[in-house]
Amino acid sequence: MGKFPFMRATVQTTLLTAFTLAFAAAASAQQAPATPGSGRTMADVLAASQPSDWRPVDPKHTLYMELPGGRVVIELAPAFAPKHVANIEVLAREGYFDGLAVVRSQDNFVVQWGDSDSKRPIKNAKRTLPAEFVIPARTAPFIKLPDRDTYAAEVGFSNGLPAARDISTGRAWLVHCYGMVGVGRDNDVDSGGGTELYVVTGHAPRQLDRNVTLVGRVVQGMELLSTLPRGSAPMGFYEKPEQRTPIRAFKVAGDLPDDQRAHLEVLRTDTKTFTDLVEARRNRRDEWYKVPAGAIDVCNVPLPARTQK
Amino acid sequence: MGKFPFMRATVQTTLLTAFTLAFAAAASAQQAPATPGSGRTMADVLAASQPSDWRPVDPKHTLYMELPGGRVVIELAPAFAPKHVANIEVLAREGYFDGLAVVRSQDNFVVQWGDSDSKRPIKNAKRTLPAEFVIPARTAPFIKLPDRDTYAAEVGFSNGLPAARDISTGRAWLVHCYGMVGVGRDNDVDSGGGTELYVVTGHAPRQLDRNVTLVGRVVQGMELLSTLPRGSAPMGFYEKPEQRTPIRAFKVAGDLPDDQRAHLEVLRTDTKTFTDLVEARRNRRDEWYKVPAGAIDVCNVPLPARTQK
Repeated sequence: MGKFPFMRATVQTTLLTAFTLAFAAAASAQQAPATPGSGRTMADVLAASQPSDWRPVDPKHTLYMELPGGRVVIELAPAFAPKHVANIEVLAREGYFDGLAVVRSQDNFVVQWGDSDSKRPIKNAKRTLPAEFVIPARTAPFIKLPDRDTYAAEVGFSNGLPAARDISTGRAWLVHCYGMVGVGRDNDVDSGGGTELYVVTGHAPRQLDRNVTLVGRVVQGMELLSTLPRGSAPMGFYEKPEQRTPIRAFKVAGDLPDDQRAHLEVLRTDTKTFTDLVEARRNRRDEWYKVPAGAIDVCNVPLPARTQK
Repeated sequence: MGKFPFMRATVQTTLLTAFTLAFAAAASAQQAPATPGSGRTMADVLAASQPSDWRPVDPKHTLYMELPGGRVVIELAPAFAPKHVANIEVLAREGYFDGLAVVRSQDNFVVQWGDSDSKRPIKNAKRTLPAEFVIPARTAPFIKLPDRDTYAAEVGFSNGLPAARDISTGRAWLVHCYGMVGVGRDNDVDSGGGTELYVVTGHAPRQLDRNVTLVGRVVQGMELLSTLPRGSAPMGFYEKPEQRTPIRAFKVAGDLPDDQRAHLEVLRTDTKTFTDLVEARRNRRDEWYKVPAGAIDVCNVPLPARTQK
C-alpha cells in the first residue's frame, strides 16, 4: 500500500523526463468525466506532442541567476514589459546583481533579491522607469481559458505566460502565478526599475495584478528559491546579512558561451497540443481522480519545459 | 529607497504581533477603491477586534507534530471528517507517527509524512476508513464569499476553514488551500485512513477537492514544512531515507500538560470582524496598492492566529 496519492500538480520547473515518470498511470475507462473530452492524460498529450509544439527559450531574453544551490532560469517577457526587460538586461550586463543577495523570503508569498540598501552604483541602466502594468490587448496574442476567474474578466496565456484581459478596457496584463517574476517598487508606481526583483513562491497573490510590473517567469530552478528559509523580520526580510543567500552571478543567457547555456524549450501555448493539455487537466483522467474538477485556475495550468532534443 | 513592495499576503501561520508591524501603513485618502467599503485595512480591523471575535484552538482536536526545526500545530476538522479525525487522534495516542518521517516534498504541491513502507504496526486505530469527501451542507455553518470561484458554485468559510458548497446537491466540503491537511489514499476512495497525511505547500490544488478527505489546517509552523528540500524522485518523494525529516513526536495537544501546549486562538469566521477583514482584503487600502482587486480568492483570505491573551 504505497499511498502515492497524487499526480503532479505542476511541471512548471520540471523537465519532461521527470514528469513522464510521474504521469505513467494510464487513463481509466471506469471514470465518468464531468464533460466530454479526449480522454487523454497530460502524459498522453505530451507523449504525442510534435517538435513544432515546442519553442526554444530565447537566450537573448533569458536570465541565469547562479545561487550556491544551482541555477535559476528566468524567461523574460519583452512583449509585456519592454522597458523593464531591457533595463534588467543592462543591469545584468553591468554586473549589477553579481554579489548581491536574496534579502527576503516570506512564507506563502514571495522571495526577493537585490540591493535593499541601494548602495550599489548603477552605470548605464536606469534606477527607475515608468510602470508597465498593462498593455493594449491587441498587441499580444491571447489563448483564453474556458473557465471563470475570480479576479479578471478573462484569463489565459500569452506567449507561454499566464495573462488576463479585459475587452471593455482593451487592456491585457500578466498575472501573479507561482514562479512569476516582478519588479519591486515603493509606493510611487514609477519607482521600480528592476534593481529589486521578486518571484511568487506561494498561492497566487492575484491582488498584485496591475499593481506591479511583471517581467517574466522562472522556467527552471524554482525549488532553489521556494525552499529558502523564511525571514523572521516583517514581510519575511532576513534580520541578519549572514542569513541572506548570495547571488554568485546574474547573467543574460545569450551572453554566455553556448556550452554554458541551459538549452531549454517550453511548450507553446498557441497550439492544439496545449489546448488538449488544458482539457486533460480540467478533467483529470488519471485513475486516482474520482471527481473531475471540470474547470481549471489559470495558475494551475502546467507550463512544461524540457531540455531541447 | 527601501522598496518594501508588498503588504503581507497571508498571516495563516503568523502571530498578531508580527502582522501588526507588517500592516502598519495607513490607508490612503488618495485611492479610489473599485467598490465602496469601510476604508479600513486589515491591520485596522484586527486592531479593533474584540476578545469575542476570537476562539481558542481546541486542544482536544489539535495535533502537534514535533520536527527538528520546531512544532507544527494542526487544527483538526471533526465537523467535516469525524471518523478520520477520531482515527488520527487514536493513531497519535498510540504513538503511530512518533519516529516516522516526512517522506515527500513536491515543489508547489504538497509535503507528505507517514509510513510509506507500511511496516509500522497499528494497535487500536484503523488502517482504512470510508471516504469523508463531502458532508450534507445543512450540517455545517457557511459564511459565503461574495466573489465567483473557478471550481465551486459557492466558496466561503466554515468554522474557520475554507470550504465550498453546492446547494443543488446539498453538499459542502473543505477546499485545498495552502496549509490544508489531507489524508493520502491509493486509487480506491476508501483506502485512506490517516496513516499518511499531507499538507498543501503550493498554489491551491483545487482539483483534489472532493477527491481526498481533508482533516484540518496548519495554524502555526507552516514554514517548517514549506521550506523542506524537494524530493528528487517522482512526485517529490525522497530517494534516500536519510533525506527524510524525522518526526520526533506527534501528539494530541490536549494530552500534554498545560505548560507544554501552544495556547493559540484564531479569528472566528462567523463575525462582522471577519467580514470586515475580507472586505479589507478584497479592496486593499494600503497606500502601496493602486488598483484594488475588487474580489478575493477563498485561498487568499488570511485566517489569523495568535497566542491567547
